[in-house]
Amino acid sequence: MKQGFGLHFYFRRIKRLRIKAAILGFGTVGSSVARILGDLKPEGVELVSIFNRDVERKRVDWVPSQVRWTSDVKEILASDVDVVIELVGGLEPAGTWVREALTAGKSVITANKKLIAQDGVALDRLARSKGASLLYGAAVAGGIPVIPGLNQGLAGEKVERIEGILNGTCNFILSKMEQGAEFAPVLAEAQALGYAEADPTEDVAGYDARAKLVILSRIALRADLAIEEIDCRPITPVAAIDFDYAKDLGCTIRQISRAELRNGKVLATVAPMLVPKGSPLAWSRGTENMVLAGGKYGGDVVFSGHGAGGHPTAVAVVSDLLAIAHGSRAVDLPSQKTPVSADFLLRHYIRFVVDDRPGIVAGIAGALAEQDININVILQKSGHDKVSMPFVVTVEPCPVSALRRALAKVAEMDCLRQPPLDLQILEPEG
Amino acid sequence: MKQGFGLHFYFRRIKRLRIKAAILGFGTVGSSVARILGDLKPEGVELVSIFNRDVERKRVDWVPSQVRWTSDVKEILASDVDVVIELVGGLEPAGTWVREALTAGKSVITANKKLIAQDGVALDRLARSKGASLLYGAAVAGGIPVIPGLNQGLAGEKVERIEGILNGTCNFILSKMEQGAEFAPVLAEAQALGYAEADPTEDVAGYDARAKLVILSRIALRADLAIEEIDCRPITPVAAIDFDYAKDLGCTIRQISRAELRNGKVLATVAPMLVPKGSPLAWSRGTENMVLAGGKYGGDVVFSGHGAGGHPTAVAVVSDLLAIAHGSRAVDLPSQKTPVSADFLLRHYIRFVVDDRPGIVAGIAGALAEQDININVILQKSGHDKVSMPFVVTVEPCPVSALRRALAKVAEMDCLRQPPLDLQILEPEG
Repeated sequence: MKQGFGLHFYFRRIKRLRIKAAILGFGTVGSSVARILGDLKPEGVELVSIFNRDVERKRVDWVPSQVRWTSDVKEILASDVDVVIELVGGLEPAGTWVREALTAGKSVITANKKLIAQDGVALDRLARSKGASLLYGAAVAGGIPVIPGLNQGLAGEKVERIEGILNGTCNFILSKMEQGAEFAPVLAEAQALGYAEADPTEDVAGYDARAKLVILSRIALRADLAIEEIDCRPITPVAAIDFDYAKDLGCTIRQISRAELRNGKVLATVAPMLVPKGSPLAWSRGTENMVLAGGKYGGDVVFSGHGAGGHPTAVAVVSDLLAIAHGSRAVDLPSQKTPVSADFLLRHYIRFVVDDRPGIVAGIAGALAEQDININVILQKSGHDKVSMPFVVTVEPCPVSALRRALAKVAEMDCLRQPPLDLQILEPEG
Repeated sequence: MKQGFGLHFYFRRIKRLRIKAAILGFGTVGSSVARILGDLKPEGVELVSIFNRDVERKRVDWVPSQVRWTSDVKEILASDVDVVIELVGGLEPAGTWVREALTAGKSVITANKKLIAQDGVALDRLARSKGASLLYGAAVAGGIPVIPGLNQGLAGEKVERIEGILNGTCNFILSKMEQGAEFAPVLAEAQALGYAEADPTEDVAGYDARAKLVILSRIALRADLAIEEIDCRPITPVAAIDFDYAKDLGCTIRQISRAELRNGKVLATVAPMLVPKGSPLAWSRGTENMVLAGGKYGGDVVFSGHGAGGHPTAVAVVSDLLAIAHGSRAVDLPSQKTPVSADFLLRHYIRFVVDDRPGIVAGIAGALAEQDININVILQKSGHDKVSMPFVVTVEPCPVSALRRALAKVAEMDCLRQPPLDLQILEPEG
């Protein structure tokens, strides 16, 4: 073993050389990848070329001038690039290009779920035989690190069950219908917003989710499923009335992709299902994706986030690129301490317990005003003892330090029965 | 670069040799690690020794007989083991042993959050200088692959904000208080269940969560924070009345650990906070842990699961062990297809739209009974047209195939205005 570690070290120094990457397909995801690389400037990675059909239409001025733009994919496949990032999509010609790149010993990163669902095992074998890498973290649930999470983080787990919300379009439609809308107008809205294609069959019939389920089953359950054998049922027959009935049953409706190991077989399906309101899968909203991995030892683990869109998908692509560039140790830990402060600018909840008498609110409001803190609401529940009465003040966003000064002043008031309790109010996401 | 990939391949063959691992500390987590290794029998890993003080008290018969049990840690540190798994906890003597192991060129896996929060940067530097690995996926949120998820899966992201529920004991207490209990009896219950220590200070004062926040900040925000500089506020002053008021404000209360990059500084705190009901952080129940990573490009990603306990923590330890044994490519993809079926045994929701007339329910019930399917509830909302009336039947768990046979029979009834819609009802977790 000792020589293994020695080599490891040597290997890592070599890896610190720059790897040359090329992007095939400069659409939404491709341009996000170029943007993130330009912004992060990660050590050890260089974008050297971009392929697109009719490339002149795509050319942008914010990409570094040394990047070569081309409409000839053969030029890239014959070049000395180390990593080909395939963002063309579809089975062909993308599949041929990926095979040619791997055959030439280049590593490949792809977001192409169809290709990986169909041919992933053979492509992985080809990559290994050439000492190259094939990574596809972007193929399932874009920005959510499900594939590395399962591959590395749950390597020591025996995952026996996968349940996922893998298609953002269906989730958008069904979570809108949950609020009372009918299918057809919501689909039209999703199309107008760019979430659904003009022909929405791939999404609403479940084919898109099914391809992702095949990939997840392979990684999590170590089971390779024939895609066309998986039962797939459309969300189209689900009507508003079903959400009413589902609610009466304590449930909502979501498109769920499930696969479960059972006696050497896999039970698998993609279909709209009733999901109990208490399940994490019922929490998903809009185009969010979610994957639940049920482990034999550690129980259920849930990953969620934005499953699609240019930026989230590009994050997965760039993460794969860094995995190739840096090996498994992507993080250089910081070399010095960072200054830390608790002075968040946030709304606060402050609960007082007082011996009720005139002037208390005026006193508190005055102490807050002195620190430029605005009161938002004052709440007081009835039914409490006058000499030990709790009431609550919420304040608009203010520095924690200012609030503490105000409360120190309030603490001097002799009507207080205990020190005031202040809690920050976490703002909703976004 | 090409020679880099060649070496990679060579390197991986060498890595396929067995690595020898030793466990220091055979408590709940240590014995779970041995159990999982015995169960999974992962290629390339061998458990060779177990250290514990007074080891005879700990010896169990289900560990392979070639494993050496010892009360002398020096014996292990001087041996040829490749990986030391430190599960002793606390700063000393664990810290000295970890340093000695790394200095001897051994890799170290640890679940010791205190040690990593305090000394992680220096220990990482020591490990790198020796060409060894230091992995601590079990130190934060045990069974949830947050550290590999951030390290690998979000390597291409710029994480700007971390919000977490990092202490299962506080979450257990606060989620019980949300249901109306008072602090003291819930703490006693947590102690009786083994979730809280006899002296609960580490948990309820926020020190445990703070150590984990330091580790997450280092990995996610690339910021090293001095642990004692982080503002930390106990959950003890939170009373039942606060949950009442929080509810009026559309919130609940959780112990939240937050850190946020702001102009080269980090804002950080551990404290009970009001969390809006719509936030994923409000979904956590019982001893569950949750980490939200807010990224510049891909938005928020949420990881959740069981954060503590022997098995979940052991999964993280074994995953780290496999990362060392197999490098970044832990998964060998399956070499043949797995048979797939959709014949889940589940409850179903079936919605019929009928031209209402006598005998419909009898006909449907008969077709279901013929397939041994039991009806659970029949629901019918008023206010619908008699000639196009929707009603719902739910059935007890049955094979999908049997239900489809029954529905094919029902489809022959001429009162049906459209094909019946059947949806599986996803069972709650566990």
